[in-house]
Amino acid sequence: MNYLSKIAQNIEPYVPGEQPKDQKYIKLNTNENPYPPSKMAVEAMKNAVDEDLRLYPDPSSTLLVESLANYYNLKEDQVFVGNGSDEILAFIYPTFFSGKKLFYPDITYSFYPVYASFFDVEVVTVPLEEDFSININKYTSLEGNIIIPNPNAPTGKGIGIDTIEEIVKSNVSNVVVIDEAYVDFGLESAISLIDKYPNIIVVQTLSKSRSLAGLRVGMAFGQAHLIDGLNRIKNSFNSYTMDRVAQAGAIAAIKDRNYFETCNEKIIATREYTVNKLKDLGFETIESKANFIFTSHKQVPAEELFAKLREDGILVRYFNKPRISDYLRITIGTQAEMEELVKTLEKILK
Amino acid sequence: MNYLSKIAQNIEPYVPGEQPKDQKYIKLNTNENPYPPSKMAVEAMKNAVDEDLRLYPDPSSTLLVESLANYYNLKEDQVFVGNGSDEILAFIYPTFFSGKKLFYPDITYSFYPVYASFFDVEVVTVPLEEDFSININKYTSLEGNIIIPNPNAPTGKGIGIDTIEEIVKSNVSNVVVIDEAYVDFGLESAISLIDKYPNIIVVQTLSKSRSLAGLRVGMAFGQAHLIDGLNRIKNSFNSYTMDRVAQAGAIAAIKDRNYFETCNEKIIATREYTVNKLKDLGFETIESKANFIFTSHKQVPAEELFAKLREDGILVRYFNKPRISDYLRITIGTQAEMEELVKTLEKILK
Repeated sequence: MNYLSKIAQNIEPYVPGEQPKDQKYIKLNTNENPYPPSKMAVEAMKNAVDEDLRLYPDPSSTLLVESLANYYNLKEDQVFVGNGSDEILAFIYPTFFSGKKLFYPDITYSFYPVYASFFDVEVVTVPLEEDFSININKYTSLEGNIIIPNPNAPTGKGIGIDTIEEIVKSNVSNVVVIDEAYVDFGLESAISLIDKYPNIIVVQTLSKSRSLAGLRVGMAFGQAHLIDGLNRIKNSFNSYTMDRVAQAGAIAAIKDRNYFETCNEKIIATREYTVNKLKDLGFETIESKANFIFTSHKQVPAEELFAKLREDGILVRYFNKPRISDYLRITIGTQAEMEELVKTLEKILK
Repeated sequence: MNYLSKIAQNIEPYVPGEQPKDQKYIKLNTNENPYPPSKMAVEAMKNAVDEDLRLYPDPSSTLLVESLANYYNLKEDQVFVGNGSDEILAFIYPTFFSGKKLFYPDITYSFYPVYASFFDVEVVTVPLEEDFSININKYTSLEGNIIIPNPNAPTGKGIGIDTIEEIVKSNVSNVVVIDEAYVDFGLESAISLIDKYPNIIVVQTLSKSRSLAGLRVGMAFGQAHLIDGLNRIKNSFNSYTMDRVAQAGAIAAIKDRNYFETCNEKIIATREYTVNKLKDLGFETIESKANFIFTSHKQVPAEELFAKLREDGILVRYFNKPRISDYLRITIGTQAEMEELVKTLEKILK
């Protein structure tokens, strides 16, 4: 007797990067921020842990939506929040993508095809160029919706705002979702295009650049008619996705702009340090605009390096997939962690 | 240009009870617990607000699953947790209900039809008897899955474990979901049937009897093949539904059994007090096994009482729907709050 629906039987779930229970690893495998969350955010969360937890949270997350609207100079009806940007992506599929074709790069965030399979969306993958860049000509006047991560994952490669605008403009009958999970590490956000185009949605998260992966807060921005659609689907799935502590922590994290900028600058500097050191060791690294790098050694297979790093207590990510099986994805940790990585790789490659 | 999918355009989202931004109301409208969360839970959550929030949570919520398994004397692979029991119900639909008929009472939790519409599940409503009780003969050998809240919402009426067992046993080709959001206020849980039947899923929540509506934690129990199905769908939607603070708070709340029992006893005593007092005022109340009552005045229309209570600063819930438009659903607050309710109703009815 099989009680599962066909979809539950046949789906291939997403497999997240390993979360080791012990903390003896240098953890460079899930693109977490090596710096702690803002002290203001920590204080706000501690204050939110009080007797009021007996009450439901505000289902509209009004105060958080207000502070995001202020921060990004948008109207409140242009802002949506969710339990991590993964949940927001999971709402985007049934809200906009069901019943149409969906286009995205052949190498991209590996959750996209899982959502497509869950929500029965027909996918057309658009091959990236040899160097993993996007060919704008392949994204002109497509007959379906589009989702592009910028910078892309797992490559780290970014697209300029002008290219994004061309894509949005030439696909005005369809929705273009720009997934900016890593945008704060070196790219301009497409939020500036929202007032100009009725068909762009920008997705971001507090997990990376705000050091709050453990809190689960994501956000989406777009014109009011798009945000309204997301709310319709959210309120048909779970009215209360954002708990009280998450709402309070997110508001404070957004407010603490100085700390956010300081951490980002450190991560970017450490990224450039790491890329240079790896070059000396025989690695070729894709130019990264993210808090991770995608790198390939000229002689030694990535899978072998992945395994040896693990033995030496360093977790990175390896994808055994076409076109990218020669690469390691390495999160940028603290300067000290990356020096340790370089030292370990030196030893392995000797 | 309409960018929304057909489903997003046509769905009628769930409307949760009002969450007033100011706190001047006596809030008896969303079945929250009037007592604060366990002090152990509050302390555990404060401790979980730390630097580790930069790291993703354990996507499998292993420690929480372990403590629930211990508490309910189940195996770990018989336990599932989610971001509130609403999210779990939203996972149950595509995991088990898609592609088959779904049976539930005509008067029930008003989110059920919304999920059905979202996940395109054909619903057959089974009328409750005149007194809102379930007729077991209408639930024998049905050709489809079944979901029953026990106690029912918004009536508060309960079903005995023997009746539940008969329903589960006579529908062994299909899944029977018992939604026990309110079970701790006076009924025996159907968790005891799990080892015996391969087709029962029991859903519970920390929102009501553990005073943690603001934290968003729900749980589901069933044999391993059912829980595995839920995990397949969860990991195709959002791998990290449970944040670090929620996992820590839930573990501690489950551990603090004494506090839980003390609060429940107080709520049950206050419920009986309220029912008796309302009887003196001309109300007829359905026998309640929940932390709310469903009550109707012999002369004065419920809608009118609802509006007058609101004017007097007391929020209750009114459903303008067939068969139940003569009723108010009133959450059981503290003894003092319910005395205030009784006093206010006395004044209104004078």
